[in-house]
Amino acid sequence: MHELGVVYRNIKRADRDVAHDLGRFGSATVHEAMGRVGLMKPYMRPIYAGAQVSGTAVTVLLQPGDNWMMHVAAEQIQPGDIVIAACTADNTDGFFGDLLATSFQARGAVGLVIDGGCRDVKTLTEMNFPVWSRAISSKGTVKATLGSVNIPVVCAGMSVNPGDVVVADDDGVVIVPRLDAGKVAKAGEEREKKEAVNRARLQKGELGLDIYDMRKSLADKGLKYIDGPLD
Amino acid sequence: MHELGVVYRNIKRADRDVAHDLGRFGSATVHEAMGRVGLMKPYMRPIYAGAQVSGTAVTVLLQPGDNWMMHVAAEQIQPGDIVIAACTADNTDGFFGDLLATSFQARGAVGLVIDGGCRDVKTLTEMNFPVWSRAISSKGTVKATLGSVNIPVVCAGMSVNPGDVVVADDDGVVIVPRLDAGKVAKAGEEREKKEAVNRARLQKGELGLDIYDMRKSLADKGLKYIDGPLD
Amino acid sequence: MHELGVVYRNIKRADRDVAHDLGRFGSATVHEAMGRVGLMKPYMRPIYAGAQVSGTAVTVLLQPGDNWMMHVAAEQIQPGDIVIAACTADNTDGFFGDLLATSFQARGAVGLVIDGGCRDVKTLTEMNFPVWSRAISSKGTVKATLGSVNIPVVCAGMSVNPGDVVVADDDGVVIVPRLDAGKVAKAGEEREKKEAVNRARLQKGELGLDIYDMRKSLADKGLKYIDGPLD
Amino acid sequence: MHELGVVYRNIKRADRDVAHDLGRFGSATVHEAMGRVGLMKPYMRPIYAGAQVSGTAVTVLLQPGDNWMMHVAAEQIQPGDIVIAACTADNTDGFFGDLLATSFQARGAVGLVIDGGCRDVKTLTEMNFPVWSRAISSKGTVKATLGSVNIPVVCAGMSVNPGDVVVADDDGVVIVPRLDAGKVAKAGEEREKKEAVNRARLQKGELGLDIYDMRKSLADKGLKYIDGPLD
Amino acid sequence: MHELGVVYRNIKRADRDVAHDLGRFGSATVHEAMGRVGLMKPYMRPIYAGAQVSGTAVTVLLQPGDNWMMHVAAEQIQPGDIVIAACTADNTDGFFGDLLATSFQARGAVGLVIDGGCRDVKTLTEMNFPVWSRAISSKGTVKATLGSVNIPVVCAGMSVNPGDVVVADDDGVVIVPRLDAGKVAKAGEEREKKEAVNRARLQKGELGLDIYDMRKSLADKGLKYIDGPLD
Amino acid sequence: MHELGVVYRNIKRADRDVAHDLGRFGSATVHEAMGRVGLMKPYMRPIYAGAQVSGTAVTVLLQPGDNWMMHVAAEQIQPGDIVIAACTADNTDGFFGDLLATSFQARGAVGLVIDGGCRDVKTLTEMNFPVWSRAISSKGTVKATLGSVNIPVVCAGMSVNPGDVVVADDDGVVIVPRLDAGKVAKAGEEREKKEAVNRARLQKGELGLDIYDMRKSLADKGLKYIDGPLD
Repeated sequence: MHELGVVYRNIKRADRDVAHDLGRFGSATVHEAMGRVGLMKPYMRPIYAGAQVSGTAVTVLLQPGDNWMMHVAAEQIQPGDIVIAACTADNTDGFFGDLLATSFQARGAVGLVIDGGCRDVKTLTEMNFPVWSRAISSKGTVKATLGSVNIPVVCAGMSVNPGDVVVADDDGVVIVPRLDAGKVAKAGEEREKKEAVNRARLQKGELGLDIYDMRKSLADKGLKYIDGPLD
Repeated sequence: MHELGVVYRNIKRADRDVAHDLGRFGSATVHEAMGRVGLMKPYMRPIYAGAQVSGTAVTVLLQPGDNWMMHVAAEQIQPGDIVIAACTADNTDGFFGDLLATSFQARGAVGLVIDGGCRDVKTLTEMNFPVWSRAISSKGTVKATLGSVNIPVVCAGMSVNPGDVVVADDDGVVIVPRLDAGKVAKAGEEREKKEAVNRARLQKGELGLDIYDMRKSLADKGLKYIDGPLD
Repeated sequence: MHELGVVYRNIKRADRDVAHDLGRFGSATVHEAMGRVGLMKPYMRPIYAGAQVSGTAVTVLLQPGDNWMMHVAAEQIQPGDIVIAACTADNTDGFFGDLLATSFQARGAVGLVIDGGCRDVKTLTEMNFPVWSRAISSKGTVKATLGSVNIPVVCAGMSVNPGDVVVADDDGVVIVPRLDAGKVAKAGEEREKKEAVNRARLQKGELGLDIYDMRKSLADKGLKYIDGPLD
Repeated sequence: MHELGVVYRNIKRADRDVAHDLGRFGSATVHEAMGRVGLMKPYMRPIYAGAQVSGTAVTVLLQPGDNWMMHVAAEQIQPGDIVIAACTADNTDGFFGDLLATSFQARGAVGLVIDGGCRDVKTLTEMNFPVWSRAISSKGTVKATLGSVNIPVVCAGMSVNPGDVVVADDDGVVIVPRLDAGKVAKAGEEREKKEAVNRARLQKGELGLDIYDMRKSLADKGLKYIDGPLD
Repeated sequence: MHELGVVYRNIKRADRDVAHDLGRFGSATVHEAMGRVGLMKPYMRPIYAGAQVSGTAVTVLLQPGDNWMMHVAAEQIQPGDIVIAACTADNTDGFFGDLLATSFQARGAVGLVIDGGCRDVKTLTEMNFPVWSRAISSKGTVKATLGSVNIPVVCAGMSVNPGDVVVADDDGVVIVPRLDAGKVAKAGEEREKKEAVNRARLQKGELGLDIYDMRKSLADKGLKYIDGPLD
Repeated sequence: MHELGVVYRNIKRADRDVAHDLGRFGSATVHEAMGRVGLMKPYMRPIYAGAQVSGTAVTVLLQPGDNWMMHVAAEQIQPGDIVIAACTADNTDGFFGDLLATSFQARGAVGLVIDGGCRDVKTLTEMNFPVWSRAISSKGTVKATLGSVNIPVVCAGMSVNPGDVVVADDDGVVIVPRLDAGKVAKAGEEREKKEAVNRARLQKGELGLDIYDMRKSLADKGLKYIDGPLD
């Protein structure tokens, strides 16, 4: 684990159709469908609002201030992949800009998630290439030290295996383990159906207290209602 | 104070018209009109740009990772309210999403200020329901522990009493104590008039140094002008 | 250095045309053209997306919670300047709002870079006056303590001399020493030409590994390719 | 609230003996005895380890970079007080050093809690004058702008009224409302007795699962035990 | 992965002797011996200076503000274990205090690493029970929501499997995969021998430039020496 | 400025005796004696309490994750120097440990100030070699990319020229420009004398309000005293 200087080729990816399908649920629903796990830390933010994508993970482990492995990773990209870039130390340098984005996009990648910095965000926005990053920074990087590609990594607090499904939108980034993708898609669908019903009731002014039948358990816990304001 | 497990009903709210009226000044002018107090910490950011609202505060005290009290608060909302959600510990979980927003909006709330995380921001933006939060996060919450509704809370460093006026825009969130609302509205109006005059003069290239008559006091403090650059 | 209570007039500025010309490269290219130095820390963010400007630096050193020197700086502005505001301590107060922006713009300033807070961002956006700041905050400031104007300052981790060139966009803020501006413009131009060629090749799916001839040096460092996934 | 330029004299203080007595419980026990409320944010740290004090609050509201009000507060100190210093903005300047400590100690203060910076920590340690602060910094401050003394303040996220009881130790700072002090002392005593019994049982190797009778509720929630490691 | 509501018993642990032996190298040497991987983020700090321990990992996944699972974990502790506590969200609450420490110590644990808060640090120091945590806080927690014990977790940015070796000291916390422990111990030993020789030469005033033979590669990279100061 | 790949030899240092003499004042007094400028940001902390040193600056500019230049700097050290290490990006890696400390100490250095991480702190403490750093971390670094030695750098927000005087203690790190050292020493001495007189008066219970004659200016600003508590 966290072996340096290694590139794994021919990784097993989650089913392409399921991976793509999970994207329409969005990160919040997928996170709930997984039982409230799988979410990266909320410091990961999209470089522009409104992007919502999913895909299969190609992972890369970077060294601080060094983006050499991003070029190595480019070769391993297949259409529908999202690159997950972790770093051996907290670092906000601009590891990724419009040239690498051009390369990634040409190879079929649909996005990048990087626990580091990103630059050329104006051009990336025009290219419609979404990036979730911990920072935006012009800071250039060197190409001097080996990391690895397609090993298990920890990115923004979440462990990611190559081939896992990545779901990313304005709310954050969720990782679905490769073998759980189908099960999670099903759970997401059910959740959406239930939510549609509840949304309609809430829109009419009904309360969650009644829809979800919370009044008794609140009273059991000791919630007291006092008529009249604080003195 | 900070009593847990209590809901106060029938709180005294600031005058609805004055509360609504204060919104047009924006947070910076209201903050100045109050004598430079009342502002929440600047880590509170709107989930989308351009919203500018005001209303009367319904307060809620949450436990970390638990949004149960948000449903209890929904029942206490009256048209024109803004919910102020504090938490007993720093926490960025997504306590609030599109279902609760549907409920809050149906009850008449015009916004939410939460010292925690928010999710479904794409949908909230489409719903035109503004939220000021410390984070955006898909992280789901449980419903297990009591907090309180309509007690005095500290939200993002500012103490808020139920019924106080909340003014929020791109610059931040200001709290106007319930009984001061009228006085502050008057001071805001005067400030705006004075600023309009000064803005016109500044636009013509006049200097604040002259408009505000600062040259003498600067000289008295010892300000020196040196003709020519540093060596 | 860091002398308080002094205003230098008639500073030497970088050549106006070169300063303006550098803006079209953007901060990332200029930073690279300088040999990967000159960049402010990435916590400096634009108040709205899409602005890209360059100009000559008028510097100001502020005291925490005090914006008096901003008015003193206004008088020293010449058309094409960008004001660089540093502070003697970390502070997020709203030192700058629409009135000062009106004054700065009337004097010919094309932007502000402030290692502190900014307010009235909605109005500043409408005015098309770009600001890069560490925070957005309604918090008002006093006018009580002297700082200095046009002394060397450290702003967001970068030292800036009056008259230096400032290049700022969505990716950050870069400082080009006054006497290096011409040389950096030339290096930027060469870099852009080279990048255009590489971009075209990357768009066709060629790999950076081949374009930049990296395969041998990666192998020399010991990079291993393993066919087949992790067990 | 948050009125500027005012000093309240002759405040009502919590009973001196009860205030002193609460100190021996420490902040964690007092926080629990209050029902898990009253705690300042954990960024407040003692300048040296091992201090454990309690006292009655004299409050002061500071402006960023300005310690003028600390001298005004000194006059309001009575033996057994702890000064609680809040600031209108986040600021780490060194508002307090050995001279003010000498003054505070001479007036009878037993400690300082400051949501800002502190300096001369070596001397303060030798003087045995404990300070809880958000930062340590040599940065000097000016004396130019009014704040207030003995108004309600928010310090490190907690609202404090003059005369409240302050309990501070290595674990943090807790505020006990003036009128609750007696009740909290009693609850603290009961808690300590119960804990002594449990501590003895835990020391012998008994499990909290059994002592607190948790096994059934864990099973009810669905906890599963699996014999044998993960594959 | 990140399954909730599960406790794995009878986990496979690294060899007890090797695990204990690794402690004497300290975290920096072990981290180097592993090829510069395995280190938790540096926000993890010991509650007191000077502790240096190693042991086998019992892992626990907590929910924010909830320490229920710590009691479940206690039962799984065997002599020589170190408990690794992760949390599903960033949270600084005081999940762990002197009672749990009494229990853990009675069961044979030699330390705790928690990506959350810790309290009663004065007592823990007296008990000689070392804790590495992200915060110190009196904030109490509830016992309401399930997490898991002995599943793979991510703690402070590092993935940890139950049974891995934990090495912790003043410099930080390193995780050695269970099956690599022997190999790492050997590499650590070699590293220490080499360092002892170099330390002796450095003590005499020899330079690393010569000992490590760096002068040629520095010159190859283009390092220039200039005799005389900057103008 | 910020030229990479350059080592300046034979720099001009501040007078050795004056540099050493300034140390006894401590950072707070020196900062005041300079007119409240010269202080590094307060995130710089000593690795152990109680050290108080001064010396002449040898500067080094590092790349993130790379400590190669520290070895180059070692050769430029003369007895009485303090090494000031800046980095081109925020980075907390452990650039410095006991081997480099052995080398620095053997060359005559009396301390290190590094805007990055440090490791082996237990050993450094035993060696009595003080370090001020932004982090403590076992994270190892590579030796791959050039920085510079003895160029002007910005370290923790303060610009430092080679040969400047560094004064560091528990309160922070202050830089005195080389040519100002004598003047600052004199001002420090005067300040200490004045403080000794005031300390004696404060110890007797006299108030700063009277000693510094503040009552009139406070009244002029409008400070009001109210007899009796808040209602």
